[in-house]
Amino acid sequence: MAFLSMDLPELRKHRPERTEPDDFDAFWADTLAAARAVPARLDTAPVATGLSTLTVEDTTFPGYGGQPIKGWLVRPRDAEGPLPAVVEYIGYGGGRAQPHDHLLWASAGYAHLVMDTRGQGGAWSTGDTPDDGPGAGPAHPGSMTRGVLDPATYYYRRLYTDAVRAVDAVRTHPGIDPGKVLVAGSSQGGGLALAVAGLVPDLAGVVAGVPFLQHIRRATEITDAFPYKEVAEFCKVHRDKVETVFATLAYFDGLHFAARATAPALYSVGLMDEVCPPETVFASYHHYRGPKDIGVYPYNGHEGGGSHHVPAALAFAASVL
Amino acid sequence: MAFLSMDLPELRKHRPERTEPDDFDAFWADTLAAARAVPARLDTAPVATGLSTLTVEDTTFPGYGGQPIKGWLVRPRDAEGPLPAVVEYIGYGGGRAQPHDHLLWASAGYAHLVMDTRGQGGAWSTGDTPDDGPGAGPAHPGSMTRGVLDPATYYYRRLYTDAVRAVDAVRTHPGIDPGKVLVAGSSQGGGLALAVAGLVPDLAGVVAGVPFLQHIRRATEITDAFPYKEVAEFCKVHRDKVETVFATLAYFDGLHFAARATAPALYSVGLMDEVCPPETVFASYHHYRGPKDIGVYPYNGHEGGGSHHVPAALAFAASVL
Amino acid sequence: MAFLSMDLPELRKHRPERTEPDDFDAFWADTLAAARAVPARLDTAPVATGLSTLTVEDTTFPGYGGQPIKGWLVRPRDAEGPLPAVVEYIGYGGGRAQPHDHLLWASAGYAHLVMDTRGQGGAWSTGDTPDDGPGAGPAHPGSMTRGVLDPATYYYRRLYTDAVRAVDAVRTHPGIDPGKVLVAGSSQGGGLALAVAGLVPDLAGVVAGVPFLQHIRRATEITDAFPYKEVAEFCKVHRDKVETVFATLAYFDGLHFAARATAPALYSVGLMDEVCPPETVFASYHHYRGPKDIGVYPYNGHEGGGSHHVPAALAFAASVL
Amino acid sequence: MAFLSMDLPELRKHRPERTEPDDFDAFWADTLAAARAVPARLDTAPVATGLSTLTVEDTTFPGYGGQPIKGWLVRPRDAEGPLPAVVEYIGYGGGRAQPHDHLLWASAGYAHLVMDTRGQGGAWSTGDTPDDGPGAGPAHPGSMTRGVLDPATYYYRRLYTDAVRAVDAVRTHPGIDPGKVLVAGSSQGGGLALAVAGLVPDLAGVVAGVPFLQHIRRATEITDAFPYKEVAEFCKVHRDKVETVFATLAYFDGLHFAARATAPALYSVGLMDEVCPPETVFASYHHYRGPKDIGVYPYNGHEGGGSHHVPAALAFAASVL
Amino acid sequence: MAFLSMDLPELRKHRPERTEPDDFDAFWADTLAAARAVPARLDTAPVATGLSTLTVEDTTFPGYGGQPIKGWLVRPRDAEGPLPAVVEYIGYGGGRAQPHDHLLWASAGYAHLVMDTRGQGGAWSTGDTPDDGPGAGPAHPGSMTRGVLDPATYYYRRLYTDAVRAVDAVRTHPGIDPGKVLVAGSSQGGGLALAVAGLVPDLAGVVAGVPFLQHIRRATEITDAFPYKEVAEFCKVHRDKVETVFATLAYFDGLHFAARATAPALYSVGLMDEVCPPETVFASYHHYRGPKDIGVYPYNGHEGGGSHHVPAALAFAASVL
Amino acid sequence: MAFLSMDLPELRKHRPERTEPDDFDAFWADTLAAARAVPARLDTAPVATGLSTLTVEDTTFPGYGGQPIKGWLVRPRDAEGPLPAVVEYIGYGGGRAQPHDHLLWASAGYAHLVMDTRGQGGAWSTGDTPDDGPGAGPAHPGSMTRGVLDPATYYYRRLYTDAVRAVDAVRTHPGIDPGKVLVAGSSQGGGLALAVAGLVPDLAGVVAGVPFLQHIRRATEITDAFPYKEVAEFCKVHRDKVETVFATLAYFDGLHFAARATAPALYSVGLMDEVCPPETVFASYHHYRGPKDIGVYPYNGHEGGGSHHVPAALAFAASVL
Repeated sequence: MAFLSMDLPELRKHRPERTEPDDFDAFWADTLAAARAVPARLDTAPVATGLSTLTVEDTTFPGYGGQPIKGWLVRPRDAEGPLPAVVEYIGYGGGRAQPHDHLLWASAGYAHLVMDTRGQGGAWSTGDTPDDGPGAGPAHPGSMTRGVLDPATYYYRRLYTDAVRAVDAVRTHPGIDPGKVLVAGSSQGGGLALAVAGLVPDLAGVVAGVPFLQHIRRATEITDAFPYKEVAEFCKVHRDKVETVFATLAYFDGLHFAARATAPALYSVGLMDEVCPPETVFASYHHYRGPKDIGVYPYNGHEGGGSHHVPAALAFAASVL
Repeated sequence: MAFLSMDLPELRKHRPERTEPDDFDAFWADTLAAARAVPARLDTAPVATGLSTLTVEDTTFPGYGGQPIKGWLVRPRDAEGPLPAVVEYIGYGGGRAQPHDHLLWASAGYAHLVMDTRGQGGAWSTGDTPDDGPGAGPAHPGSMTRGVLDPATYYYRRLYTDAVRAVDAVRTHPGIDPGKVLVAGSSQGGGLALAVAGLVPDLAGVVAGVPFLQHIRRATEITDAFPYKEVAEFCKVHRDKVETVFATLAYFDGLHFAARATAPALYSVGLMDEVCPPETVFASYHHYRGPKDIGVYPYNGHEGGGSHHVPAALAFAASVL
Repeated sequence: MAFLSMDLPELRKHRPERTEPDDFDAFWADTLAAARAVPARLDTAPVATGLSTLTVEDTTFPGYGGQPIKGWLVRPRDAEGPLPAVVEYIGYGGGRAQPHDHLLWASAGYAHLVMDTRGQGGAWSTGDTPDDGPGAGPAHPGSMTRGVLDPATYYYRRLYTDAVRAVDAVRTHPGIDPGKVLVAGSSQGGGLALAVAGLVPDLAGVVAGVPFLQHIRRATEITDAFPYKEVAEFCKVHRDKVETVFATLAYFDGLHFAARATAPALYSVGLMDEVCPPETVFASYHHYRGPKDIGVYPYNGHEGGGSHHVPAALAFAASVL
Repeated sequence: MAFLSMDLPELRKHRPERTEPDDFDAFWADTLAAARAVPARLDTAPVATGLSTLTVEDTTFPGYGGQPIKGWLVRPRDAEGPLPAVVEYIGYGGGRAQPHDHLLWASAGYAHLVMDTRGQGGAWSTGDTPDDGPGAGPAHPGSMTRGVLDPATYYYRRLYTDAVRAVDAVRTHPGIDPGKVLVAGSSQGGGLALAVAGLVPDLAGVVAGVPFLQHIRRATEITDAFPYKEVAEFCKVHRDKVETVFATLAYFDGLHFAARATAPALYSVGLMDEVCPPETVFASYHHYRGPKDIGVYPYNGHEGGGSHHVPAALAFAASVL
Repeated sequence: MAFLSMDLPELRKHRPERTEPDDFDAFWADTLAAARAVPARLDTAPVATGLSTLTVEDTTFPGYGGQPIKGWLVRPRDAEGPLPAVVEYIGYGGGRAQPHDHLLWASAGYAHLVMDTRGQGGAWSTGDTPDDGPGAGPAHPGSMTRGVLDPATYYYRRLYTDAVRAVDAVRTHPGIDPGKVLVAGSSQGGGLALAVAGLVPDLAGVVAGVPFLQHIRRATEITDAFPYKEVAEFCKVHRDKVETVFATLAYFDGLHFAARATAPALYSVGLMDEVCPPETVFASYHHYRGPKDIGVYPYNGHEGGGSHHVPAALAFAASVL
Repeated sequence: MAFLSMDLPELRKHRPERTEPDDFDAFWADTLAAARAVPARLDTAPVATGLSTLTVEDTTFPGYGGQPIKGWLVRPRDAEGPLPAVVEYIGYGGGRAQPHDHLLWASAGYAHLVMDTRGQGGAWSTGDTPDDGPGAGPAHPGSMTRGVLDPATYYYRRLYTDAVRAVDAVRTHPGIDPGKVLVAGSSQGGGLALAVAGLVPDLAGVVAGVPFLQHIRRATEITDAFPYKEVAEFCKVHRDKVETVFATLAYFDGLHFAARATAPALYSVGLMDEVCPPETVFASYHHYRGPKDIGVYPYNGHEGGGSHHVPAALAFAASVL
């Protein structure tokens, strides 16, 4: 896909109006309070991987509704003392995959928790965490419209809460320095990182690559690509529920979390990304309240900076952890 | 798609081996017994449609787990005495849609119950029935792999049971002759009709158009079309669970139901159908135990006979009801 | 397809200039006068359908050049006295199809004439009416460019005339109230309904769903979708005849008919419709001279409101018939 | 498209059964006799082309029904005495195009008549000849199903007759040696050349590149490519007319003409041709009754030998003219 | 593709800023001086073609680095005295192809040199000239990024030089009038013709059909079509070299050559051309310094005017040669 | 893509005839002898990566013609004594990419040399090694047909030699145990590993995932996927050089190397792989002369076992190193 309607100079100043529900903060305060009724913990079990420089543990922590959320904890084998930690979230449709898929952050000296994604993990990488929640009503295939007719039952209420609880969980681990936690992810993972940044006040940093779930309604109007398209497809069938759908999604739009977040953030964007259009990424970036920087990749789509962006991410992490 | 590997003469005699689980009958006997612990009933509420020759009622009956399953009951406005009934199931991804979508069978003088499809109804027509069941683990988007790692949690255990309970329900209605019930549907609806025909002994007839869910494993090997492809995609990701998946699916393959069914049946098939390949439809047809006929449409895909097949279906219904 | 260049607020006020041929009215007055030299009549023959609440008749009436145009007349079986009538036109590429495809309007109590489409009926539904007319010269496959080098030989001159003559015909039928005739259709059918509304002064109402043939030249510039694309493809080959083509099409553009129509009209539009782009539908709507309303479906393509729009159409019909 | 089901050794001996109508010869004898009631002639008018080595004339000759068929006659400017002639037919969807598109044969010293294709010429090159014939009934877009429900009204009855009459016409021209006429064409043009070879006994030669219209029913079963697909699409809609369609096409299948042709022939075939599958070309080749050769292009599709085949065609022409 | 963002009135005045390297002229002066150290000559060898009105010779001339560049010289067989000449360049991916592919210009009375394209000729027509040059580093498949990290090693430095040397070569031939040389080509061939027009001061004329290599950076931002896309794909992978790439391409952008060219020029453009977007063609046209005209084809893509444009090109050639 | 023509039982015994050139061994002996005239060495320079458990060095070694070939050497930071080594080759179109892309093998305790791919590295990952060799003649875009008209100039002669020289180079490094070298790769990388296994007698093991370059001619006949398709496309244009092309490729077909290889090998295959069809992988596997095993992934395409195959590969490496 060639450059979208806005060119880079326009994107550089694109900061659209945002309108959030009056009870946005109350909704999330209530949601998190309910989840935190179950104390945070991080259960671990060793995994035999054949790796010699790193250890991997199969982890479980209580997420939304106290439900057990799986993950991998990867650490340098010979680390001493509590380590700074990276909590990573996964892109849409995937799960925590295999241990060997997660070698970077621990090889750089961090404790690395990869959170599994409830109910996903069937499309491109394996997952191990069911989505035991309400909202099993008619939905477009995929997760984007599961329970979307009510904020209380919407899938991402559960997943965003899991993401917050992952931070709570790593902070209880004796090998991790609770004051040095960075959240990271790309696409949906970037969207989750931004949501957590708006809900957890004392993070060390945020790495949000080509983030999804930003300026959602606008995205459904300008791209035909999935997964935003799942919302459009649902609205196509449920013609009478369009406003209901977007009333729910207003509680989950990354713009509102960005506007609350204060930790230093590193965004990235591909100017030819039709999955997460640059217009939506810059909309989020310009509403982000904390210190921030953005890696711009002009000829890239949703792959964004790829492994070219890794040195920047490692340098950013080193600067804040 | 042009003609598939088998030509018509080969299809005319294609009756592959089938291997069913030893406890197939026990599995279904237990499943239905549990569901039938809730007595059958059909609750109805009138719907204002602007139609003058027909009446439509919004219906609810207890399905799997006694959960409320929605439907429409459409009848000729001036009918006297109990009517013979057609219970219809919907194709994959759709729900019961709108009342005006279901005028045929009642205009022909029958009571017509359209069963909603739990948890579907987001892809091409609206639905109103949630899927409140177990098996919310990682799955490929869509319904085909929901809970597929165990027959007890598999989505179609609940849906097949709903379909049986729909027959139970209409038989309780005073305006319907319980001895004259025909089940019908196309694609997934045809697969459901065949499953019910194998599970309910005293049906008057079965209309199964281009039926889905027949010879499932073979289908995943010969077509790239969805929804069979959902199973292949799941197996592509979950490389270690291929045999587990097909062990579950063996309890749901239409060939085993066809081999038990005794009511007269009218099949149809499109010889260029890549969604439900003709090889799988003929496999089912040749295992079908009762009296049977099949409408063959050589240049058609999954649309099969379309409205050209309606006179044949009406004539068949008239002959058995 | 995501939202087109214009967003809804822009569409809500989009009323482009229109330029009609000086002899537009004379052209059509001459054309209709010639056709009406053959007296209107509606010949009917009963059809056995297996339906009990409705009757269907196979009909023939004189169209352009007095040529016999087929149709179906569907009526409630037990109606008494002359009924209000709905004359329906079919979408591009289809014909009158099968009787069972047309149950809605009669089930709602109206006499329903479905007009066959001359020379179409090979692409998605069957037709029974040949196009015996001039203009058999080189054309792009399809009907859009048949005879397009001269308004006198253009295909739609014949088809628009047929559509007017269908209204003339139903008004001669003793079971129909000639003062209560509504014309209806979607896509090409909607375009025909609007053309008739501009040519027949005393209609009771017009239902034009996602109408085709509106602002034609503009459409060929902004969409790659067929059938507008047939015109573009013809111009691509016949580079020297572009202006000739559009000089002909100016006699057939729905904007000019809309500007003459006075009967109450119900339009509909899908904001993601690339077959009949919303810009062209609103262009027609805003030039429509009579009372009007429009159903807007933001996430829909050419399917528009689908069966969700049926209650609105029935209510509109009830209000004007 | 990779190699089709048959590999080259199988193709080298593929000679399927063919079944022709009992009155095949009578049908064509009657058809041609009727056409020949109008005496052959070739009217010419000079065309200014800016070319100095060649002359081009705009030609007209009587075809089916005596209707005027256009063409171009291209000749070396300084030729003396009657020349041998090449009569060329055009591929599907195109017309005679522009004079500058036809320089080869005349540059090689032949008189070259390019026959326009009635009613085509809108898809990829311009044409100037209308199809004024019967059979304007519902048809799939394109020419393949125009009038296909009856051999008498089928489009190709008229076009095959035109092709025969083109040979009759060139033979009347004083600048052409009537004993030295070769017919040539590719795709539909090759099919026409083969038909003429089966209907005109004293041709000097036939060049049939990747010929269309050979083993038609088989083709509709094994390829999804147009224009054979037009027949399949028509049968898809007109489910009740499949046998009628193929009863008509039996009068037009190239296999039956090939079995009657005696002039030396040069075929060509691309082994990856999905438009005219190699199986159908070899079927024709092996039934061809006269001396024959075939150029086989293993990695080519419908482009066949392209300009690589030109030297072979020129050498073949030189050997028979 | 429907009309692009700019409509025709906007295109008619589109003359974007252009920024050329300071040493643009020096770069090319040095490049050509080095190449011209090898004296121009045109070696010819007769080719047997079977043609009687034309002669074809297999030619070789020294190009960049004195490397032997192949071509065909086609002339009227009976020409007397030196002829005006047309030097033609080929479109992207092709080579000089076969002699029979080049009959037009010689049939119109010109000497016609078709230059082969070094290292291309594998994609759609055959070539016979290797690219023996530096710059074999990692590149996107195709020629567009071969050696692109340095103007000195970039592929088009060699090819543009070959194109200039082709003019030098034909001027040495005794059968050609050196004062009457026109350069011509379409797509890449048009881009080469424009580059030569900016580098060789005394040409008689330029025919540049739908020219490629104009306003290159802009093209990579607005189209997804190859071959501009090759540059975008390279930049997608080599994220750190985007500015280096465009610094090189600035020496090769047709806008800068157009701004220097003084010979009369005939451009053409297709308004729906996504390969060479009309915006880039008009950008070049409006910077062209000499007398100029442009053929505009509103409903055409990259085929532009096709053979409809031939009379205009012949007339233009006749007016300047 | 669904299952190919052969099913698994057939594949399990598929061992087609293979025909190798008489001078196959001489060709390779001469080629390697010439290359080895330059002594093996591995130059290294440290790279700052931000990693704490591993070290990465930028490496250079002499390949074909002594040309400098780049690579990365990744090792555990705290390793003592010479390590066993894995030499890895990259898939088609990519280069050595970034250091952070190669963490697995070193994290498992091995010295890991990633060889860059000459002249590739522009399509999906960056490369840094030019292809300075002969054979710059016309070729299809990509590497598959570069210099393909002569075995001496063919691209893969140079690349296969580089791959052998990579093994020579690592064996000179003091931190590596020269008796414990395993070669590995997927797709083209797997093909290179197999070629090296047939040319270097004393390897410890071979890991060949979904290997490319096996049974090449057959592959070009049964798949439309690139890069095998590059050969087919070249043959499509160069119709007269088909046999020349395959005469060259016979020196490079993996079947002949497999038949000479004696080290233990681990293959893998995806049964729905259309890039490297399973038929070609099994053909190689069954000709492989040494001890062997194969991981079969029935529902996978060219991704094969993905990270699910990593434990098997690590276990295999541990068993042979």
